Amino acid sequence: MDLKAILDAVHDGDMPVDQAMEHLKTLPYGNLGFARVDHHRALRQGFPEVIFCAGKTPEQTAAIAADLVKAGQNVLGTRAGKEHFDAVHQVLPDAIYNECAHTITYVCHQPRQLGEVAVCTGGTADIPVAEEAAITLEALGCTPIRLYDIGIAGIHRLLDKLDVLRSAKVIVAVAGMEGALAGVIGGLVDRPVVAVPTSVGYGANFGGLSALLTMLNTCAAGIGIVNIDNGFGGGYLAAQISRLAADMQQKGKKE
Amino acid sequence: MDLKAILDAVHDGDMPVDQAMEHLKTLPYGNLGFARVDHHRALRQGFPEVIFCAGKTPEQTAAIAADLVKAGQNVLGTRAGKEHFDAVHQVLPDAIYNECAHTITYVCHQPRQLGEVAVCTGGTADIPVAEEAAITLEALGCTPIRLYDIGIAGIHRLLDKLDVLRSAKVIVAVAGMEGALAGVIGGLVDRPVVAVPTSVGYGANFGGLSALLTMLNTCAAGIGIVNIDNGFGGGYLAAQISRLAADMQQKGKKE
Amino acid sequence: MDLKAILDAVHDGDMPVDQAMEHLKTLPYGNLGFARVDHHRALRQGFPEVIFCAGKTPEQTAAIAADLVKAGQNVLGTRAGKEHFDAVHQVLPDAIYNECAHTITYVCHQPRQLGEVAVCTGGTADIPVAEEAAITLEALGCTPIRLYDIGIAGIHRLLDKLDVLRSAKVIVAVAGMEGALAGVIGGLVDRPVVAVPTSVGYGANFGGLSALLTMLNTCAAGIGIVNIDNGFGGGYLAAQISRLAADMQQKGKKE
Amino acid sequence: MDLKAILDAVHDGDMPVDQAMEHLKTLPYGNLGFARVDHHRALRQGFPEVIFCAGKTPEQTAAIAADLVKAGQNVLGTRAGKEHFDAVHQVLPDAIYNECAHTITYVCHQPRQLGEVAVCTGGTADIPVAEEAAITLEALGCTPIRLYDIGIAGIHRLLDKLDVLRSAKVIVAVAGMEGALAGVIGGLVDRPVVAVPTSVGYGANFGGLSALLTMLNTCAAGIGIVNIDNGFGGGYLAAQISRLAADMQQKGKKE
Amino acid sequence: MDLKAILDAVHDGDMPVDQAMEHLKTLPYGNLGFARVDHHRALRQGFPEVIFCAGKTPEQTAAIAADLVKAGQNVLGTRAGKEHFDAVHQVLPDAIYNECAHTITYVCHQPRQLGEVAVCTGGTADIPVAEEAAITLEALGCTPIRLYDIGIAGIHRLLDKLDVLRSAKVIVAVAGMEGALAGVIGGLVDRPVVAVPTSVGYGANFGGLSALLTMLNTCAAGIGIVNIDNGFGGGYLAAQISRLAADMQQKGKKE
Amino acid sequence: MDLKAILDAVHDGDMPVDQAMEHLKTLPYGNLGFARVDHHRALRQGFPEVIFCAGKTPEQTAAIAADLVKAGQNVLGTRAGKEHFDAVHQVLPDAIYNECAHTITYVCHQPRQLGEVAVCTGGTADIPVAEEAAITLEALGCTPIRLYDIGIAGIHRLLDKLDVLRSAKVIVAVAGMEGALAGVIGGLVDRPVVAVPTSVGYGANFGGLSALLTMLNTCAAGIGIVNIDNGFGGGYLAAQISRLAADMQQKGKKE
Amino acid sequence: MDLKAILDAVHDGDMPVDQAMEHLKTLPYGNLGFARVDHHRALRQGFPEVIFCAGKTPEQTAAIAADLVKAGQNVLGTRAGKEHFDAVHQVLPDAIYNECAHTITYVCHQPRQLGEVAVCTGGTADIPVAEEAAITLEALGCTPIRLYDIGIAGIHRLLDKLDVLRSAKVIVAVAGMEGALAGVIGGLVDRPVVAVPTSVGYGANFGGLSALLTMLNTCAAGIGIVNIDNGFGGGYLAAQISRLAADMQQKGKKE
Amino acid sequence: MDLKAILDAVHDGDMPVDQAMEHLKTLPYGNLGFARVDHHRALRQGFPEVIFCAGKTPEQTAAIAADLVKAGQNVLGTRAGKEHFDAVHQVLPDAIYNECAHTITYVCHQPRQLGEVAVCTGGTADIPVAEEAAITLEALGCTPIRLYDIGIAGIHRLLDKLDVLRSAKVIVAVAGMEGALAGVIGGLVDRPVVAVPTSVGYGANFGGLSALLTMLNTCAAGIGIVNIDNGFGGGYLAAQISRLAADMQQKGKKE
Repeated sequence: MDLKAILDAVHDGDMPVDQAMEHLKTLPYGNLGFARVDHHRALRQGFPEVIFCAGKTPEQTAAIAADLVKAGQNVLGTRAGKEHFDAVHQVLPDAIYNECAHTITYVCHQPRQLGEVAVCTGGTADIPVAEEAAITLEALGCTPIRLYDIGIAGIHRLLDKLDVLRSAKVIVAVAGMEGALAGVIGGLVDRPVVAVPTSVGYGANFGGLSALLTMLNTCAAGIGIVNIDNGFGGGYLAAQISRLAADMQQKGKKE
Repeated sequence: MDLKAILDAVHDGDMPVDQAMEHLKTLPYGNLGFARVDHHRALRQGFPEVIFCAGKTPEQTAAIAADLVKAGQNVLGTRAGKEHFDAVHQVLPDAIYNECAHTITYVCHQPRQLGEVAVCTGGTADIPVAEEAAITLEALGCTPIRLYDIGIAGIHRLLDKLDVLRSAKVIVAVAGMEGALAGVIGGLVDRPVVAVPTSVGYGANFGGLSALLTMLNTCAAGIGIVNIDNGFGGGYLAAQISRLAADMQQKGKKE
Repeated sequence: MDLKAILDAVHDGDMPVDQAMEHLKTLPYGNLGFARVDHHRALRQGFPEVIFCAGKTPEQTAAIAADLVKAGQNVLGTRAGKEHFDAVHQVLPDAIYNECAHTITYVCHQPRQLGEVAVCTGGTADIPVAEEAAITLEALGCTPIRLYDIGIAGIHRLLDKLDVLRSAKVIVAVAGMEGALAGVIGGLVDRPVVAVPTSVGYGANFGGLSALLTMLNTCAAGIGIVNIDNGFGGGYLAAQISRLAADMQQKGKKE
Repeated sequence: MDLKAILDAVHDGDMPVDQAMEHLKTLPYGNLGFARVDHHRALRQGFPEVIFCAGKTPEQTAAIAADLVKAGQNVLGTRAGKEHFDAVHQVLPDAIYNECAHTITYVCHQPRQLGEVAVCTGGTADIPVAEEAAITLEALGCTPIRLYDIGIAGIHRLLDKLDVLRSAKVIVAVAGMEGALAGVIGGLVDRPVVAVPTSVGYGANFGGLSALLTMLNTCAAGIGIVNIDNGFGGGYLAAQISRLAADMQQKGKKE
Repeated sequence: MDLKAILDAVHDGDMPVDQAMEHLKTLPYGNLGFARVDHHRALRQGFPEVIFCAGKTPEQTAAIAADLVKAGQNVLGTRAGKEHFDAVHQVLPDAIYNECAHTITYVCHQPRQLGEVAVCTGGTADIPVAEEAAITLEALGCTPIRLYDIGIAGIHRLLDKLDVLRSAKVIVAVAGMEGALAGVIGGLVDRPVVAVPTSVGYGANFGGLSALLTMLNTCAAGIGIVNIDNGFGGGYLAAQISRLAADMQQKGKKE
Repeated sequence: MDLKAILDAVHDGDMPVDQAMEHLKTLPYGNLGFARVDHHRALRQGFPEVIFCAGKTPEQTAAIAADLVKAGQNVLGTRAGKEHFDAVHQVLPDAIYNECAHTITYVCHQPRQLGEVAVCTGGTADIPVAEEAAITLEALGCTPIRLYDIGIAGIHRLLDKLDVLRSAKVIVAVAGMEGALAGVIGGLVDRPVVAVPTSVGYGANFGGLSALLTMLNTCAAGIGIVNIDNGFGGGYLAAQISRLAADMQQKGKKE
Repeated sequence: MDLKAILDAVHDGDMPVDQAMEHLKTLPYGNLGFARVDHHRALRQGFPEVIFCAGKTPEQTAAIAADLVKAGQNVLGTRAGKEHFDAVHQVLPDAIYNECAHTITYVCHQPRQLGEVAVCTGGTADIPVAEEAAITLEALGCTPIRLYDIGIAGIHRLLDKLDVLRSAKVIVAVAGMEGALAGVIGGLVDRPVVAVPTSVGYGANFGGLSALLTMLNTCAAGIGIVNIDNGFGGGYLAAQISRLAADMQQKGKKE
Repeated sequence: MDLKAILDAVHDGDMPVDQAMEHLKTLPYGNLGFARVDHHRALRQGFPEVIFCAGKTPEQTAAIAADLVKAGQNVLGTRAGKEHFDAVHQVLPDAIYNECAHTITYVCHQPRQLGEVAVCTGGTADIPVAEEAAITLEALGCTPIRLYDIGIAGIHRLLDKLDVLRSAKVIVAVAGMEGALAGVIGGLVDRPVVAVPTSVGYGANFGGLSALLTMLNTCAAGIGIVNIDNGFGGGYLAAQISRLAADMQQKGKKE
């Protein structure tokens, strides 16, 4: 029973005021226009509910995935092991597993297309994190342009890709070890850069801390950082920015 | 002597190939279309060169500011002490000092307007950092909407502002201590959130580390983090996103 | 206009349903019974609004204090410098400053009495933090029993106070350096212990980290820890527990 | 032979002073009223001796458990592996193993009932720690009310449970990643909150440090923190508070 | 009234058993043979009560010092500022202040002589910490042999002093920066080495952490480490060892 | 099409200026004399492209190795597991695996000889890292002189090797635990010392942090540090220095 | 050719002075009385060469052990796995493996007896580290008195053992988690205390850091700390102190 | 009495062998050719003894400086305050103070010239550290080529200086904040790079830790790192390498 129904009942005298107040107090906040938006967000925007599989049993994962599909939503599962996929696969035979990105995807309907996002890595070992970002971008309607292994140890590789980088609306820079990639790109382009530090490295990289600190301390401006190895978070932020841009483009068309 | 002049001279036989090659090798990269963009960025985009005053003498600061104004550019100085301003004020009597944000601004020409950005703080002690973000946003053409002291210890304050937050294109969330503000906002809105941890607090906040880690580990997606107390960086990233949105709106209009 | 008034108007046909919905969406959550509780909490419970003075100007502090008193509430200001007090003193001549605890207090009405709480310190240098806890306890209606300088380096001092410790309903243990006081007390009593690590010490105490880690790793159970030097937080938690105990005692009386 | 017996014997001339002094010097401190309390605590209060199984062999664990049962005490073993349980099961066939919480329990007699305690988690991956708290609460006579997966990324889930949270006497908040749950709850309720940070997360969560620091730095007051992943400690502190409340209720009844 | 007096009174019928029990409960534990040792330790052993002046007011410091002297004890105050000394000097005109070591000393009676202890430093900047150790040693009856500035950057300086080092019973090695001195000495001598890391250095020495870690990780055996800059602790441990040696020498004489 | 070809075409009128400008903008920077140098570096200098195998699949590793050999370059693979070698061995049957150093090497042509470099370790457990340095040195044309297990716990072992150390042009000092080896050597010789901290140790060595901090804080001058366990980096830097020395020797010969 | 032979040859005119100088420069320092002492230390003092097995192959371990026995020395191997023992056992069938302490021992001749040392632990999980200390003490001629599981959570257990603790010449205190044991003992006894922090615990104990910091920051004086889990180091230091005491006792006898 | 005198006396029969052995045992090692080299190092190589002024009194500093000049050596004082210089200036009126680098220099004789070294900084705030390196280089005979403010935020500035960088024999890269400068340069040149992290920055730079970690984790090879803000150490290492190169050039000339 939602807000309007309650108000109608009060209006029509079918529900006393006291009872209405009780309802309103215990009603899910979503029904007040607040949680409903939240609840309906995925359907409206084509942004699927995301399942963070690590720490969930394969059975839990499969149940959530089946639920989402029943509700007509796309599925994106991150940090999924093979065992998570096997369970999902049984209930959703068309689900796809990406071994490199450790993602499970299942598409009910094509998401609204939001344009290209460049996804760069410093080295080859950063690719799994970058792929998590790329798969997330695809799931959210963006088209990832992969620019892998353009780290600063051989900076000409990066400079050679400058045209591609400059034509992108948003750039996701994934790098471990010294993590300088994001700062160098940030100094070369005029678009928002999403920086994803990775735990790639050894010794004094302290599980990605070195790359994280590099990115936080970069002198280049216009860079937003996410957690270490958080390819999903990097892709999501880039998609969020892309969606804003797409919304504004649409708004411009109507003007 | 720029690239085209060199090529023209080669074409006209006024310059032998060998000499041209020498020129091209030593020519500033900017002249190859690469650094020139960089050099002209501020004029084209209305994004001023920013002077990070900390670690510069007042004299250096004033000289740079005067230079920028001579070149017709706006001036934004951050982390400026009163002594920096006094020096700038002597050469630019119309320069303005913001004591709270520690910024120096001088406007030669109005920047292109890029729309509203919400700037929130968890507490009152976070306001200086938020003001640095707000002044930066203004300098870059955005209109900051200040929502201060809406931290999660009294979450209804934040919920009361939900309409304002939801209507903003970009949100800058500035918070110290536990730093949960950005994550709570990120769970409530569908727009990019720029999170600025501050060093406000004591004890186990370790100079802002607690707020930084909270923001990096947030379960909410769509959040980009900048360095501790980096109000400038937060404002700049938000402006960068706003400019992309404005560009796309303009592009939409032309379609 | 609160929830009941809106529902009454709808019921009486004085307000159409659509307008009611608009009202309900924009109404402060407090009006739904949610924030109002929050807003009225201090008056109902005798727990004053607390002003964290650090990071506030003296003027801001004085304005908030005056406001609270106008609303009939007691005032407790923590981390207050002499300059904060001077400003408050001008508007509230009866306000009291505790130089050791750095607190400002002003009592409009006696708070409900909640019983005794033992406040212990390991050494004499921990006393300012303990006093902040003690003043907070007093402001919230508890009676602090001070047991200072009973640290474990001479454990007989602590054992001598065992009777006092065992008769307390709640114990606040304030200690820096090695911070073992809370664990030793926790092993000797059967009541909740609130542990407050302090930054007292030097060298490898890393600003109170050593005491904090000691307390977190204690083998004794029944200990809740607050932030380093957070005497206020320690006193508040102890008062919160005391109030629960007082409420239950009152409930018992009615049974 | 206890203190009174010795003094009586001295008084009656049955024991010379020298011999009494020897006795008093070597007498266990418990006999002076000190350790005896400690020794008898479990029987009197229904709080079982707790076996921390990690770092004990299965044989040691089983021997201690059998000993406790022989003494008529309940058994609670935490951090127990399957191998610990197998050994206990052989000597106590009615012992119960909770695979999620990693606890072994065996009940000789029902503990004194201490009332309800809410146990909340931010996410599903925090549930094992929360279950350790819940099983501990049950073993100590409390009734845990489980409110799982109400983290702040979707804050309406938490707000929907506000009535339950507000009716609880004590709340245990278990959360990893950003760990903001405890602070948000603390800002909404007027009861003691026990915060248990968990090591759930990755990257810059540094084994639970991020959640721990968030909780220590929370702006909300009335929160006591325990060690990372220390569900037992969180449950024990909540039970300790509940027992104080129950004692006071009983005291009230007698008044 | 001590234990024997109480027992005598009970024996003689001058004190009823109940009253005796009350006495025994509140009597300082020292009277049971436990705290008395503690209380009398300084007088018996010539080890003075030590006043840690940091965090005490000059008045408190002077009062404690006067008290000790009234009880016939020597005075050693560490971490004493000039203001502490001025207050002590007013009540004890013969007290001596060591500006380098920041100590206050006042000798009532010569302590028992315990022999020589070598006190070494890596550099000249470590001398204040070494002097705190040396003054402590003197106050406790040892004769410090100062070997300053023999750090490993010029290892021949250390090797030149090998005879002195090898003839010492105990060695206190004080070093900052890389802190390798203790390990090198430990590899060359066959006596206990007390290692005192100092905060001397800059950059990645992190307030003495580098020297502390070096000493903890030394491959040389027979080294006991104290807190950073804790010259007092280093001197005290060396004196403790020296006293054991002196006791055993005396015991040998009697054999 | 390289720079000269473009300029020739412009000169000969075969290419219009506009088209030449387009070419120059998109031309790889290497063709401007910048990246080409980079690309040809290995062939010219005999320094092989190095494959960091960790994080690469065996197939990727083998493909890169085969490519390098096809281009006539030597192969050095570091952090190689047995599985990497097996894949390389299939395509390059003469490749050699060093189980201790975890390196794969394949020599197409002898590198230019650069002279001797001393490689020292503090203990035997540091040898794998030292061997990585030694194999790297060999691959780059240096002759490693191995001086293992000369740590400072028995400093005479090191002093016995002083002649060898003093005759070396460059010294690589590999040490874990306290890591004092580099500083002691630096105080004894007049040549550049490359310090490689290792993660050998336990407890408070924190994965090599203790050795790293020791080396960074050494009082001895003339020491350059590389990452923890980075034998390759240490060897490479020593070879870089050796090559400079060899170049200068050659230059001297020509003078 | 040793020092005396050289001097004899010079004296007899069989060796010119210049040649003697060359010899003396390259002569092992041991031959100058310096390293020889070192070399002979074990035999003279009964302190065996200790083999740190971790990081050595079983073969290396066995070879060193055999060598030592051939030279008539006792063998003590620490951090030895079963595989190390198996290899040693083949060459030394009478060697003994302690599974709890992970030590290998082989006794050629009884070491000089140095007296009793108390070895205490806070809990049962600390016992392996304590056993490493105890076995080390035995190997060096001390008699360890084991006092296990007397941690401060039930402080009466410790107080009950006060007589034993007070009669010991040296005390080794082994404790993890909060690590307060050493400080409490240090406050109760007048003898040197060797503190060994252990990595026992979880969450915010950070691999033993919490216990280490507690011990470093203890207010009790007379405590020397060794590395985390370094039972060997703790035992060695206690033996070193005991030997000094024994030497002095012997010296006393001769007086 | 030095080694030769002793041997002569033995040879001439003026000293018995036993007495000679005693002498040799106690003789400073320097007299055995070991420490003398050390002692004479400065004179022979033109490398002055360096005075680290921080932690020394002005008087101590002046005395050492005067001593060095008396011995005919050049003086270099680092981390010198104005007060140090004032004291030195009184005894050495020609001494020079560099306010930016905080150095004192006094030249007795021109050092041997060792060639050019490039000294680069990322920003202007790094210049004081770079100047310390430059002054050190000058004092040791090198000619510093200053390339300041070429950080990677505007990478074309660095690329414009590539010719200068490539022609340098050694490069000192000084950078704070993200500290990526060293890695980018290391990827572009084929010469040894000395990396000096600085503490320039704020927030999560943690006193230079961010720049230090970046440099340690750089993917570029051939880079040696020194302590944070250690301009002297960076300059010294670069000079050490330059001297080796100069020695080899001279050796080449003689071939």
